[in-house]
Amino acid sequence: MARPQSSAPITVALLGGGTVGAEVARRLVSGGSDLSSRVGAPVVLTQIAVQDTARSRPGIDPSILTADAQAVATSGADVVVELIGGIEPARQLILEAMRAGSSVVTANKALLAADGAVLYAEAARCGVDLFFEASVAGAIPLLRPLRESLAGDHVTKVIGIVNGTTNYILTQMDEQGAGYASALAEAQELGYAEADPTADVEGLDAAAKAAILAELAFHSRVTDKDVFCEGIAQVTAADITAARDMGFVIKLLAVAELVRDEQQRATGIIVRVHPAMVPRSHPLASVRGSFNAVYVHADAAGELMFYGRGAGGAPTASAVLGDIVAAARNKVAGVRDVGESTYANLPILDIGQSLTCYYVNLEVDDRPGVLASIAKAFAEHGVSIQVVRQDGNAQATSGASLFVRTHQATDSALRATVESLRQLDTVKHVRGVMRVEGEVGE
Amino acid sequence: MARPQSSAPITVALLGGGTVGAEVARRLVSGGSDLSSRVGAPVVLTQIAVQDTARSRPGIDPSILTADAQAVATSGADVVVELIGGIEPARQLILEAMRAGSSVVTANKALLAADGAVLYAEAARCGVDLFFEASVAGAIPLLRPLRESLAGDHVTKVIGIVNGTTNYILTQMDEQGAGYASALAEAQELGYAEADPTADVEGLDAAAKAAILAELAFHSRVTDKDVFCEGIAQVTAADITAARDMGFVIKLLAVAELVRDEQQRATGIIVRVHPAMVPRSHPLASVRGSFNAVYVHADAAGELMFYGRGAGGAPTASAVLGDIVAAARNKVAGVRDVGESTYANLPILDIGQSLTCYYVNLEVDDRPGVLASIAKAFAEHGVSIQVVRQDGNAQATSGASLFVRTHQATDSALRATVESLRQLDTVKHVRGVMRVEGEVGE
Repeated sequence: MARPQSSAPITVALLGGGTVGAEVARRLVSGGSDLSSRVGAPVVLTQIAVQDTARSRPGIDPSILTADAQAVATSGADVVVELIGGIEPARQLILEAMRAGSSVVTANKALLAADGAVLYAEAARCGVDLFFEASVAGAIPLLRPLRESLAGDHVTKVIGIVNGTTNYILTQMDEQGAGYASALAEAQELGYAEADPTADVEGLDAAAKAAILAELAFHSRVTDKDVFCEGIAQVTAADITAARDMGFVIKLLAVAELVRDEQQRATGIIVRVHPAMVPRSHPLASVRGSFNAVYVHADAAGELMFYGRGAGGAPTASAVLGDIVAAARNKVAGVRDVGESTYANLPILDIGQSLTCYYVNLEVDDRPGVLASIAKAFAEHGVSIQVVRQDGNAQATSGASLFVRTHQATDSALRATVESLRQLDTVKHVRGVMRVEGEVGE
Repeated sequence: MARPQSSAPITVALLGGGTVGAEVARRLVSGGSDLSSRVGAPVVLTQIAVQDTARSRPGIDPSILTADAQAVATSGADVVVELIGGIEPARQLILEAMRAGSSVVTANKALLAADGAVLYAEAARCGVDLFFEASVAGAIPLLRPLRESLAGDHVTKVIGIVNGTTNYILTQMDEQGAGYASALAEAQELGYAEADPTADVEGLDAAAKAAILAELAFHSRVTDKDVFCEGIAQVTAADITAARDMGFVIKLLAVAELVRDEQQRATGIIVRVHPAMVPRSHPLASVRGSFNAVYVHADAAGELMFYGRGAGGAPTASAVLGDIVAAARNKVAGVRDVGESTYANLPILDIGQSLTCYYVNLEVDDRPGVLASIAKAFAEHGVSIQVVRQDGNAQATSGASLFVRTHQATDSALRATVESLRQLDTVKHVRGVMRVEGEVGE
């Protein structure tokens, strides 16, 4: 039942010859016959646009290397693969490739999150495919399942650990008791974090991925500007220890959630990236080190989780190659995928409307009546308390640590509560406020 | 960017109105407008073949119910959904639906594992789609990712927890200390196990799913007859306790693995279902209760895991609806998917060639020289010992428990070793032999 091999060859051209590009090229060449069986036609790598054409790349014929990215983009190859990254010139090259009739495969999360709408529209206008499985959670097959397998279901929430650098840092803090600075330094030494770690530790990388996930999950336009974003730089060793004592682990989460009214009609979307406490029993809690995972809740399917490597040359190449095969198959069949569809067109709501549980760490006077005044502040803002724990305090000379875990409340109610707590003379210091995600019955 | 709604309606007919069928029907009706947006044409449920047409089904127009499954199968609906189960008449009805030009969606693992080749061939001949995401691991999007997202990679191993009944029983034994019989009785009371639990506890259900997974992962024909199968009825509370003491948990695994020669060329496939010890740190170890998960190892992607609900009306309906949307979109576009492709055509190898680590539990004489004789028996068969642990023995009057964990060895070498051990007069009893899966650096 092998497919007939009589079709004309499918040509593939690469923009970018870095770690992922070289890996994709190597696998296109070495896996040729297998790929051809899967596509139903020979697959030929025609050109690679690289910055340094003189550098030797084992297994790659040097004659297909060129410094002229423009020429590669407009070559009319069946599939053009963009692995340059960043907004420009990647954006312009992708648009030109589509206009030349090429289907495009890209791993460019920044571009898709910033300006995906223009790319989707141009792909539709040109009648070509635009695939980007590698842009979120590397090797994990995630975007296609969201778009296709769950097409008959309603996704209500997506919670992702989609940044390996921050997950490595938080895992080291949790398991080795390391402080934030030393865990970051170690991640930099091992190559898990860049010299300038801003995009990772401030949550910007995760925010771009959150926007892409939200758009696919909720069939509505979402860009990185729509994402509420807090990084992990403020997470302390004390937070991690307190979380552990209460049966939680702290993770940087990318959350996209559907907001529904009382009649269960969807009214909007909230997309947020921030550190959160996750119960140790939740599947996301066991995602360690540089691994990624995305947890999905859907009306009919219930809980799902997708787990795997989120970065690295070979894992990213696996996702890129899957997309190349899909685009090539479509070229052989003379069709294109349905592509992006944002028919639901839901508005983006403010983080203030987000409903979550919180954990608030207060330094308070250690005397009678304190708890009553604090409980009153929560009650006045409609925030219901789930658990209060008071510890003798090693950090303050005269006072105590109070941990308050709330029931679900809106972000704005919680913020107002924290403002009120700061005004109380029984509260010396609001040490920390953190959201809780993934609780049973939440 | 919603797709134009000018296309003619897509008609869907159901064979079977049980739990899953009723859920699919209800969601087809209530989710009509959303589904139409996703498909690009109105989706209309035309007929449901049920055994009892008189029974009321909330939300379903009784006039579309019929007892005539044959008429529904040959109605020429765009998509026919088979949810009857079993081999006949499901097989004949599916073939007739294809011949009438209908794409077919089915959740029928038994039929696909027994006779998939005939169905794939007929789908190709008739130019229709055959989708079966719901047949393995219920709601978890798994078959489409294996077939499409990993199409540019090489899967080397698939390890699944694909039977919720046995996972529930083993979880209860592990967490509550229950014996096999009482855990099974509890599962039956709760509706997780059938009155006749044979298909689940003997591993037959898992074997059918293993065959489907192996066929997709390795692009070669695999049927349930090719699967080596051992159930969980022999697993004792003592095995569970011993496993826990060593940092393992016992799971019923469906394993499909590629066998390669020294040049890394694929030479065959081994497919096996059996209880195995899994390290507690492995992602599969935390899959509790009736949940399912499938762990995939691929050359480029590395480790992946897919987790979710493996059974139940709504989760199964989610997978069926995803397939209906995919088949309907193809009908609108006038195309079909590439479908099954078994170009690799690898042979099925005997379980004897399977390489795994083992744990062997022996009751031995408690005197000097015993360990030497036992070590010799392993060495004579080329089985290398990784760890030996000797316990004082509460179960025997004069003797000791010896736990031996081996390095990787072939199944046949291990069997021969166990035979030799049984002949030794220092060995009173071979209490248990169990495979170990999922070890780091295995």
